Amino acid sequence: MENIVETSILHIDRPFRLESGEMLPGLDIAYEAYGKLNEARDNAILIEHALSGNSHAAFYHKGETKPGWWDVMIGPGKAFDTDKYFVICSNVISGCNGTTGPSSVNPATGMPYALTFPPVTMRDMVEVQRLLLGHLGIERLKSIVGGSMGGMQTMQFFCDYPSIFDSFICIASTMRHSAQQIAFNEVGRRAIMADPRWNGGNYYNEVPPEGGLSVARMIGHITYISEKMMQEKFGRLRKGKDSKAVFRPSFEVEHYLDYQGISFVRRFDANSYLYITSAIDNFDLVSSISGTTRFRGDNRARGKGLDTLRKKKGLVISFTSDWLYPSQQAQDIVRFFSGLNVRVSYTEIETDHGHDAFLTDYVQVSVMVKSFLDSLS
Amino acid sequence: MENIVETSILHIDRPFRLESGEMLPGLDIAYEAYGKLNEARDNAILIEHALSGNSHAAFYHKGETKPGWWDVMIGPGKAFDTDKYFVICSNVISGCNGTTGPSSVNPATGMPYALTFPPVTMRDMVEVQRLLLGHLGIERLKSIVGGSMGGMQTMQFFCDYPSIFDSFICIASTMRHSAQQIAFNEVGRRAIMADPRWNGGNYYNEVPPEGGLSVARMIGHITYISEKMMQEKFGRLRKGKDSKAVFRPSFEVEHYLDYQGISFVRRFDANSYLYITSAIDNFDLVSSISGTTRFRGDNRARGKGLDTLRKKKGLVISFTSDWLYPSQQAQDIVRFFSGLNVRVSYTEIETDHGHDAFLTDYVQVSVMVKSFLDSLS
Repeated sequence: MENIVETSILHIDRPFRLESGEMLPGLDIAYEAYGKLNEARDNAILIEHALSGNSHAAFYHKGETKPGWWDVMIGPGKAFDTDKYFVICSNVISGCNGTTGPSSVNPATGMPYALTFPPVTMRDMVEVQRLLLGHLGIERLKSIVGGSMGGMQTMQFFCDYPSIFDSFICIASTMRHSAQQIAFNEVGRRAIMADPRWNGGNYYNEVPPEGGLSVARMIGHITYISEKMMQEKFGRLRKGKDSKAVFRPSFEVEHYLDYQGISFVRRFDANSYLYITSAIDNFDLVSSISGTTRFRGDNRARGKGLDTLRKKKGLVISFTSDWLYPSQQAQDIVRFFSGLNVRVSYTEIETDHGHDAFLTDYVQVSVMVKSFLDSLS
Repeated sequence: MENIVETSILHIDRPFRLESGEMLPGLDIAYEAYGKLNEARDNAILIEHALSGNSHAAFYHKGETKPGWWDVMIGPGKAFDTDKYFVICSNVISGCNGTTGPSSVNPATGMPYALTFPPVTMRDMVEVQRLLLGHLGIERLKSIVGGSMGGMQTMQFFCDYPSIFDSFICIASTMRHSAQQIAFNEVGRRAIMADPRWNGGNYYNEVPPEGGLSVARMIGHITYISEKMMQEKFGRLRKGKDSKAVFRPSFEVEHYLDYQGISFVRRFDANSYLYITSAIDNFDLVSSISGTTRFRGDNRARGKGLDTLRKKKGLVISFTSDWLYPSQQAQDIVRFFSGLNVRVSYTEIETDHGHDAFLTDYVQVSVMVKSFLDSLS
């Protein structure tokens, strides 16, 4: 079958220095690719995943019936048309789906890193992907695209290395978290750390802190869908209650959240949740590119080179009912990049689906993305 | 000193039947009273507390420097003027501040009820207060008043016994929870029950589930204040971080939430939190008074007697930035009671303080309440 994909792992056998100055002795990068790199090696598009995403953005893993998380957008004839583009997606550093993170084994000790894993930033996530692009021999990309946290990586990468990308597409995201956005993440982290099974992050040979992680996911999920959609879908409907079990879910919305929590703990690592949400809260695009950051290496753009963004293109999309990343924050993005003379298009899509619309409202998003990509040629 | 008060306990030594049909062998009711009952016994006002409130609504306990939770509203010359009115407030059934609840000892076993405590409803809370009024020899009250869950009790009591009250005042509340409102409470309950120390509710001789209860309170607190206020107060400000402690609070908003959680677990029982939030989620004013409920005893108003509400007065107050109980829900209250020919006044107070404005914005609330009470004479 055409649309079968395998996750590849790139092993980096040399030390990797993080923005904090801390070092990892080496690194695995899990990634997938769809479509073909053309001879000019200039038809690549980089996809950035959100908090709970992974490198499996599209197509099917052999024997599985569920495609990647953005399969509706990526494939032959779709918005990210794999007949035209070479589409790449990798798992973020500190994640738990193949790229090195707190659940990975530290070669120095033979034990999982757990909390000895260094704190990561949005820039670290981006730098890891730069290694991947180097490995793939790609020096220039048509675009970089992401929703939610994926949008944060998109903006960071675009600003840090403007010479690499012709454009960026940022969906349902923000340049920095507000106090309330930090608060929601913090409560999720507290829920994990309040679970005695978390045990200071050392649970890899024991029962993981499923209770805490599940609560964290439930909190997140409330913010992912709109109040209106929740009301229309669940209202005050009830679902058969076991009368002997006190305080078991009774309302349908309770069952729904319960299911979200339970299915999440099967596929996600609690420590990764701590690292990634902290990277999100600490992300602050403007101050990160202001040139004041203590950072190694390649300074192509940072602070000095931002003028090379001039005439590049950007597409920013927000959703009317997204109360996690409201349109006002998208408009801040538009203002910021317009100020850098990037030619930014902005669309606010009318929908009741809330933040999750970046995944569900793909028909409207596809129309915008397609015409944007066409405008690049 | 004039403004010293003690909490009284009324012991009820006969069985109390709950709306569910389950029985309690007896009941304690903790209450406080301020001002003097006049000879006609018709100057009483009943105050209903919110989720985490108690009977200590005003004045000072001997030796304490912090007054009751609504002291800004209750006292000589204040909105609920104790020179004119006899003001009463009692702790709700299933609470943990003197009125019988899951942490109380079951006389049949000599052990705390824990989860053998029967589930309670808003109507149960109200019926307990009816016992108290009987004990105090009060058959008619000027008004009944409450914010948040207090507003729910207010409406329930007013509708169940319209012959008792001349008026009601309902602040920052709703006639029923939406799916999202249930969702926030459910996540709080899950956080408590996910804490292994909760132990099926049996923790009274052990360390209580402080981690879970603290997370529940943090979630609640995000909904109590407005996004704007949180942003203006905390923004992205940081507070000295112990660099060795990974994932300890770093942003000020994290420290703030942490403090809210920690101070709450010192004064509140986790099981009470489960019982009371469930009563809130199950509350549905319209269906509770539709006459279809299976309920014992005094049926003065229930369904049939609602026409006796005609010409009584109501005051409904909401706050522009309250996103827990938005003004739209207050307007539903106004429409409902207007439909019953209650003469309802409605005010939406402009404020950035969110749901907590029912406690903080007392100057504006006082003006409304004073003129409303004056209009009753």
